[in-house]
Parts: sequence; C-alpha cells; structure tokens
Amino acid sequence: MAVDGEAGPAPATLPAGAKDVLPVEAEELRELEGRIRAVAAAFGYREVMTPVLELAEVLDRAQEGGVGPAFRLFDDHGRVLVLRPDLTIPVARLVATRLADHPGPVRVAYLARVFRPPPAGRAQAAEERQAGAELVGAGGAEADAEVIGLLVSALAAAGLGDARVAVGDVSLTAAVLDGLGASEARRERLRSAASARNLVAWRRAARDLDLADPGRTLLAELPSLRGGEEVLERVADAVPSAEPACGRLARLLDLVAAHGAGEAVMIDLGVLRDWAYYSGVVFEAYAPGVGAPVAVGGRYDRMAGRFGRARPAVGFTITLERLHRAVAGQRPEEAPPRDGVVLVGGMDDDLAAARAMRAAGLPVVALPTGDERAERLAAADGWRWVAARAGDGYRVLDRASGRSFACDELQEALPSPP
Amino acid sequence: MAVDGEAGPAPATLPAGAKDVLPVEAEELRELEGRIRAVAAAFGYREVMTPVLELAEVLDRAQEGGVGPAFRLFDDHGRVLVLRPDLTIPVARLVATRLADHPGPVRVAYLARVFRPPPAGRAQAAEERQAGAELVGAGGAEADAEVIGLLVSALAAAGLGDARVAVGDVSLTAAVLDGLGASEARRERLRSAASARNLVAWRRAARDLDLADPGRTLLAELPSLRGGEEVLERVADAVPSAEPACGRLARLLDLVAAHGAGEAVMIDLGVLRDWAYYSGVVFEAYAPGVGAPVAVGGRYDRMAGRFGRARPAVGFTITLERLHRAVAGQRPEEAPPRDGVVLVGGMDDDLAAARAMRAAGLPVVALPTGDERAERLAAADGWRWVAARAGDGYRVLDRASGRSFACDELQEALPSPP
Repeated sequence: MAVDGEAGPAPATLPAGAKDVLPVEAEELRELEGRIRAVAAAFGYREVMTPVLELAEVLDRAQEGGVGPAFRLFDDHGRVLVLRPDLTIPVARLVATRLADHPGPVRVAYLARVFRPPPAGRAQAAEERQAGAELVGAGGAEADAEVIGLLVSALAAAGLGDARVAVGDVSLTAAVLDGLGASEARRERLRSAASARNLVAWRRAARDLDLADPGRTLLAELPSLRGGEEVLERVADAVPSAEPACGRLARLLDLVAAHGAGEAVMIDLGVLRDWAYYSGVVFEAYAPGVGAPVAVGGRYDRMAGRFGRARPAVGFTITLERLHRAVAGQRPEEAPPRDGVVLVGGMDDDLAAARAMRAAGLPVVALPTGDERAERLAAADGWRWVAARAGDGYRVLDRASGRSFACDELQEALPSPP
Repeated sequence: MAVDGEAGPAPATLPAGAKDVLPVEAEELRELEGRIRAVAAAFGYREVMTPVLELAEVLDRAQEGGVGPAFRLFDDHGRVLVLRPDLTIPVARLVATRLADHPGPVRVAYLARVFRPPPAGRAQAAEERQAGAELVGAGGAEADAEVIGLLVSALAAAGLGDARVAVGDVSLTAAVLDGLGASEARRERLRSAASARNLVAWRRAARDLDLADPGRTLLAELPSLRGGEEVLERVADAVPSAEPACGRLARLLDLVAAHGAGEAVMIDLGVLRDWAYYSGVVFEAYAPGVGAPVAVGGRYDRMAGRFGRARPAVGFTITLERLHRAVAGQRPEEAPPRDGVVLVGGMDDDLAAARAMRAAGLPVVALPTGDERAERLAAADGWRWVAARAGDGYRVLDRASGRSFACDELQEALPSPP
C-alpha cells in the first residue's frame, strides 16, 4: 500500500479519449436523460436497448462502405465484433427484426453509449452518450415534423429553450439535380463537396455543369440558402420539377409550427449530411456557444430493408455531453448546498434517526460516533447540514446560512423534501 | 428491399451471449434502476461513470492474476484495451485517483454495463447490467452494516422484499486457520476448495491438517455453518483466538438489525468468495426462484492502494437482469393497458389536441388522419385508449373496459396522470 513518503503505484491512466465522470456531472447527465425520457414517453416513444458488441458483418450492411471507424475485435470463433459506433443502425436492426410484426408506426427511444476510436492526435471522446428517438413505418412530412417537434421539446425540457434546428432535404437537393439534368458523374462531385462541407468545391462543380440561368445561379447557391418558405419558393421558381419536394418541405414547416417548434426551425439547404445514409429530410440542432451540433437526424428510408422488414424511418440523436455543455453554460457557477445532512453517529449510535430521515426522503450521509470529518465531508460534497448529538438533543450547522442551532429532534428541525 | 415472396436479407444475428431488450423489459429495468438510485441517494451515495474501455495493464493491477476473462483489443498505439468485466475495480481506480483528496468516507454508486466473453458452449450473457455502491474510507463493522443495509433497502424498493443475504467473512476464516496453526501450503488447498465451492475437497483438506478436536470438527464444518450469533459463539469456543473476529461479526449483525435488515441477513461461513479480492466481510443476496445470487459484495481493503490512495472499502453489486427476473416472477402475467391514447389525426389535423394532452402528462401516440392501424397499434403496445374525430367531437374506445363513448373534448374525457 502507498503510504505518505513512499513511492505510490504507477499512475492509473485511461485509454485515449476516455474519461471518468464524477458525481456532479453524472447527476446532471442523469437529470438530462430523465427529462428527455419524459418527453419521449409523452410522444409514445418507448425505450429499447441493444448490445454494445455487434457482429461487424451485420452492422456493415447498413450503408455502402460499412459503418466506418470503430473499435473492432475477434470473438472466440474468429468473427469480427464491433463496439457500436452509432445507435440508429442497431435500433433499425432491432426494429426490422424483433419488431417486424408490429403493425406500426413503431416509436422507439434509446439512451446509451457509442464508441469511436479518436483520430490520431485529436482530443476527441472515444465514448459518447446519446439519446435518440426513431419513428419507423411512417413516411410523410407528418412523421418528419413529429420527430423534429419531439427533438425541440426534448431540448427545451433539458433546459435548452433557445436551440436552433436547421433543416435540409437530400431528396429536394436530388430533385433539383434531376430537374437540371445533372448526370450521375457530376452529382458525385457535388456529393463529395457536400460531404466535405466544401462550398468552394461545390460552386466549382456546379459551374462545370454548364447550365443556363436561373438554374446555374440557384445550384451554385443551393447550400447557402437558408430561411423560411421564401427559400422554397425560390427553388421551385428556378427548377419547376422540384416543386413537389419544395411543397413537402413547406408542409413540414407548417406542421413543425403546429408542434410549437416553429420559432426554433429554419430551412438550411446547406445541411446535406451523408447522402448514402439519409434519403429525405436532414437536420442539425445547434445551441449557443457549442460549435458542433447537439443533435442530428433525418430520414433514412433505405436502411431497414437491409436488416429485415423494409419500412420508412426518421429519427434523431442527441449527443448528451454536448447538450450538457450547452446547458451547463447557462447555469450559475456556484451551486447552493444540496439538501442532505451529514450525521455524526448515523452509522452506529444514531442509526435509528438516520433511518427515519432517509425513509422521509432526506439524504443522510452517516459517520461513526466521534468522527471528526463531518464539516470537511459536507464541504467536499456540498451537503447543507452537519449534525451531531449534543446533550439530549443535537447541534446542527446550516451551511446555507452559516448558522448553528440546537434542536431536540432532527426530523422536526430539518425540512423533508416535498 | 425485401418484399413478400422475395428472399429477404440474411438474418441479422447478434454475437454469442448478446441480446436486444424490447420496450416492456427496458422500461422495467429502468424502473428498477430508478428505485435503486433513489435508495442510494437517501444514503448519500452519488453516481459516478467510468469508461467501458480501460487499459488492461491498469485493471490487471487490481488483484493477483489480473481481471480474468474479458474482451480485449488493441488500440492504435498497440496498447491492450479491455472492456470492463467488473465495475468495482474501475470505481476503486476512480476513487483512488480522482477522489484521492476527498476527506472521506467516499460514497459512490454506479448503474452500468459489464462485459465477459461467454464460456464456449454456455448460454451466458456477454453483457450484464449492474447497479452497485461502494463505501471507501471507512473500515469498521458500521461501514459493512451500512452497505448491507443499503443493499437490503434497495432490493426491497425494487420489489424484492424477501431477499436473503448470506454473510461470511474471509478474515474470520483466516483467523480460524491462524488459530489452528495452519501453514500457508495447507491454506492454499482450503482456499482452492473454497473458491471451487467444493465441500468434499474442503473436508479432505481439513482432515489432512491432523488437528485435535474441537478444532478438527469445527474446521471441517466451517463452510457449512450458518445461522445467527450462536454460530459465532461456536467458532469462538473452538478457536479462542478467533474471538475478536467473531465479535466484529456479531456487532455487524446488531447494526444490520438497526438498519431494519435483521430479518434478511444470516451468517453463512460457506460464503467465502475470492480470497485474493476480498479482505473481510463477504456476502451474497438471494431471491426465491433465482439460482444465482442477485447481488454479491464484500470488503476489499487492499485494492485502492494498487491504483492510488490506499483506503479501506466495502461495496456490493446487483446484477440487474437477475433482480428483474426475480421481481418479474412475482408480477401478474397480464399487464393492464397503460395510460395513453392512440389518436388518429394527432400527427396532422389534431396536432393541437395531441400537444395539449402531452403537456398535461398523458402519452399521445399519434397517427395521420385516416390511418386505420389505430386499434392494432394500441393492442400491440398496450395503450388504453383509441380516439378519432367523429363529427364535432371524438369517438373513444377504452380498451380497459372494452366500451366506446363519444365526447366533445378529449382532454376532459381522458384522465390526466397525477
């Protein structure tokens, strides 16, 4: 054992990108989870759980090129296992197989971890907590709007009332390209420019299409277009055959407003995300002060059929750590002491008092009789009261006010939670 | 896409020992977690979270022989990573390092998953959900009693009021062997018999010690001794030098009774568990109808010093799936319909009504206007009501009674949750 003055053990480090979560942050993350879970439940989304380890050959079916960077290992039978790098794919697998007989629409939610090896030299988390919801078996703008409405409600319930959701649509973009007669090869250049979020490359690829105006200008500006219905009108004016796709998105805006999320949502045709994965609406939610999106989502109608029963699907994923950072930024620095009493003697002579207060809902952090760490312990963990036997009653310190007082019975002196 | 009559995709299977958890079971597991979390909070235990992936060389320090069977893989730097096969060790690592400056006692809890490759040919889960609590920096019987009291309270809150906790003590067993003058080599035979839970091998090894009575008989019967204080008196009579260890365990019984857990707890000197890991009291909780223990725990004073600050520690781990099986066995087969309404039109024309009821706390599972799946959907997921516009009001089916009725406003007709 390491004793003062002796050399201690080698530092107990963690893998690259891994971290421990201490009590305050852990409680805040659980609080966020609870709020998101409550909103999902109000919309009828029910939690499912999938294993952390999946067969690589199964997950790789989800999209062309497989699931991408992931932790992989061999099992005892030589099969490649993968630590799920994503939850949409495992949940799609579950719904397409275990819930294939469900009449639909299927509404499922999840709160779980995903794993991705951090790129060399980048301080990126290897493990991320995600909360998400998927609506499977409903294909219209109503379904897209519900999922976006649920996302905005969940973020608001978590304390992020000022999130902004930018909504694009890869099928609208495809309709524009169809309408302009763009060949598959030309699209490929646009697609890779969009995936890389390289606007300059996009404009160059658009110019090389040799189109006439208004199509030429519209295509060049497409990923920069953002706003309300006027954006959709402009697209439909320039490319009449894209009108149905624009009408669908206009209807989505109306339905999102009916969900009470109109203020939070705007059209942003620069949200293109991964065309191989998504097939319709795509969206990203942003919080003030957090660079990366706190949530992403979209419609992915082609995925379920690769696992089992083919059904349209739309969903979102919130990255909990990012949401936590966004919400923590709005909180006061100094938290007030937490309701709870450090009770000297609560582990032995005053066990009965400790037990009674716990049963009434007040946290009791017990110490053995005579233990002198009470005030330091209360300060370290932020508990409000420190109490110890004094004569026939108790002496209590209220750390919120800094005052001490005497009382006969602790249960009468300390307020129980409602 | 798979269409009826066409060959579908290859079955989307899971790795050996992996499983998906569907909504009803997932909700029940979350309910158990919530109840355990509330009891832990009442005792001042605060949740921490550790990464799933740890450095193998760090976890392997916890005990002689390393952490044992686990999923292992290499990271990009050639280091061996391990999927944590246990949570006590990572939490001990966290407390010994990140909370080394805490004045103590440190009370932490966790609700998380562990991973172990299932032995070939055995239907054993590869991933297990665990709930646990650790009390670090308190060494006496008071600390042991608090942890056992917390365990019994948590199991009772989860619905397992009739759990039984069998308590042994590896330091008492060691004191008996010391008192009888058993050499290290002889102990090794007993230790391996104990680890294998092989009573016949234990008796043979005990006989080979060539002791005189009463030590001879006592040692042979030691792992079969169970009951209350009379067991401890018998040990102290036969091996007087073990009297202090017996006295400590007798005091533990008194304190456990003061925690209200006296009925649930009995001495069982056959609970020996792993002597390399544990250093004092060891215990196992059993539920009627579940063969394996729903929880295990004990004192492991030697572990923290291998990671950082050396402090005594005691804790337990509940296996949530086993607890769930034990509790589910006590529940009626047929669950009543859940409060919630499947609302036809709730995704579009009646979105405002859906939104208002959700805000009041009633789950609304929405369908587009005209969708004919409402009753099948309600039956599949167990929702109580099915509602749709009819004239100026609504037609509602109450699946609990089988009756239909008409109403003007859904919010008035359907009871909101308290």
